[in-house]
Amino acid sequence: MTPPARDLPRRDDLDLIPLDIDESGTRSSFLLEAPLLRHDGALYGGTAIAASMMAMEAASQGEVQWITTQFVAPAPGGRMIEVHTEVLASGRRTAQLRVEATIDGEVMFASLGSTGVPREDGLTGQFETMPVVTPPEESAPRMHGPPRGEAPTEPAWERACEYLVPEILESDRPAAGTMAMWTRFRHGRPMSPAQIAFAADMVPVAIARGANKMGAGTSLDNSMRFAGGSDTEWVLLELQGNMAAGGYGHGLVRVWSQSGKLLAVGSQTASMVYLFD
Amino acid sequence: MTPPARDLPRRDDLDLIPLDIDESGTRSSFLLEAPLLRHDGALYGGTAIAASMMAMEAASQGEVQWITTQFVAPAPGGRMIEVHTEVLASGRRTAQLRVEATIDGEVMFASLGSTGVPREDGLTGQFETMPVVTPPEESAPRMHGPPRGEAPTEPAWERACEYLVPEILESDRPAAGTMAMWTRFRHGRPMSPAQIAFAADMVPVAIARGANKMGAGTSLDNSMRFAGGSDTEWVLLELQGNMAAGGYGHGLVRVWSQSGKLLAVGSQTASMVYLFD
Repeated sequence: MTPPARDLPRRDDLDLIPLDIDESGTRSSFLLEAPLLRHDGALYGGTAIAASMMAMEAASQGEVQWITTQFVAPAPGGRMIEVHTEVLASGRRTAQLRVEATIDGEVMFASLGSTGVPREDGLTGQFETMPVVTPPEESAPRMHGPPRGEAPTEPAWERACEYLVPEILESDRPAAGTMAMWTRFRHGRPMSPAQIAFAADMVPVAIARGANKMGAGTSLDNSMRFAGGSDTEWVLLELQGNMAAGGYGHGLVRVWSQSGKLLAVGSQTASMVYLFD
Repeated sequence: MTPPARDLPRRDDLDLIPLDIDESGTRSSFLLEAPLLRHDGALYGGTAIAASMMAMEAASQGEVQWITTQFVAPAPGGRMIEVHTEVLASGRRTAQLRVEATIDGEVMFASLGSTGVPREDGLTGQFETMPVVTPPEESAPRMHGPPRGEAPTEPAWERACEYLVPEILESDRPAAGTMAMWTRFRHGRPMSPAQIAFAADMVPVAIARGANKMGAGTSLDNSMRFAGGSDTEWVLLELQGNMAAGGYGHGLVRVWSQSGKLLAVGSQTASMVYLFD
């Protein structure tokens, strides 16, 4: 059981996204630069959800239990982002928070979520099992990615975290669209919940795969639910497309520690525009 | 394919939640009364997400693609709820919206979501299959519920929609915690997306079931993603607990039409407090 949280957000998270937080804990800012960017130089979605989680932790000193981040506008690299957090309600264990991130007063992303203090005797359990996949040392680098263990030269988010593609050997969930990726932070330490959210912003790829196409889409949001940080360096992203209609696609991600613990479940909707056979 | 939406929200939805909408489409209000209540007389979670969807439709004249509703405070029955919708961004197809619902200026629930106009040639497909279950006419009434087809006497949300419990005969997703419910609106017409959201606010029961316990919890939020309204009167809620830690539990729902169409996927986090063996 995780002890009551103190001194949130975590040092490792601040090393990734250097939020400058005011004394109240409700206002902060950070410079949008590598490795917080997409390949086109705009805000990477994983940065938006991770920064929102850190802002919620700073304002409430609790662990994020669930969060939804809405991607409103493609914030350009090189700019300062202002983050404002409202505590909508605060009880004995659980706080309800709302985050708005702006540049010059214009909303770039917005989040809702809850933080909480886990109860020692509170319901704890896991109702699903990890798929059996090849371990990281027997998994392939992502197509078009740099060689194993090497950071890419472009200033995007893969400078912070590495991805490998295992073979899925056995799964309880044989749905079309299921794919898997191992990921770890290059700092080599187990991931915090915010780092899991940063690395897991990958669902649209699985929606395209579900339709037997390559490509991805523009994520509209990312929603994640957490059971804590990882106990292992590598975590497995188990990705799955659910369905698509009229160009909007929906999918899921389960995040597993290498020891088989279900760390997080997430879902995303994307406008599926970049597809090829 | 759904034609471009007009005259949203729908008449059937307004019959359920009589939103009084101003000319701008961004401000509305409704009286919180039966059948929009829980059994304790406070706001039912399904009302909050359905009302938020209708508010987003009114402000943008687009169909909700995804939404997250955060339950902030237990709004008491008998009060007027004021709903304010902001259009955070609006593109050619997709609008990003934020909703806040208040009583006397105090936030009761808050939502983020996107509406959109489906593209005729946009990606459309379904990557999962419906479980095989007994049909409604061979399924049992919910335990403690009224006899088949009869509305309950208490003024809660089951006055609007009916639930039956089928037997699951075959499923691709045999995870612990999986349970199913047939539901329909007593008006007898196929459900709109907002009505699907109203009826589907049921995930915490499945989280408890995953842990081999009876009971439920206090939902912190409800997130749903849609492929459109139903083509059949009855829809199947396929519910599943993922995991729980320190008293916070997480789970999923898939919503199927009786013809096997995956209409919606949803997820919820709950504080699991009312449990017994």
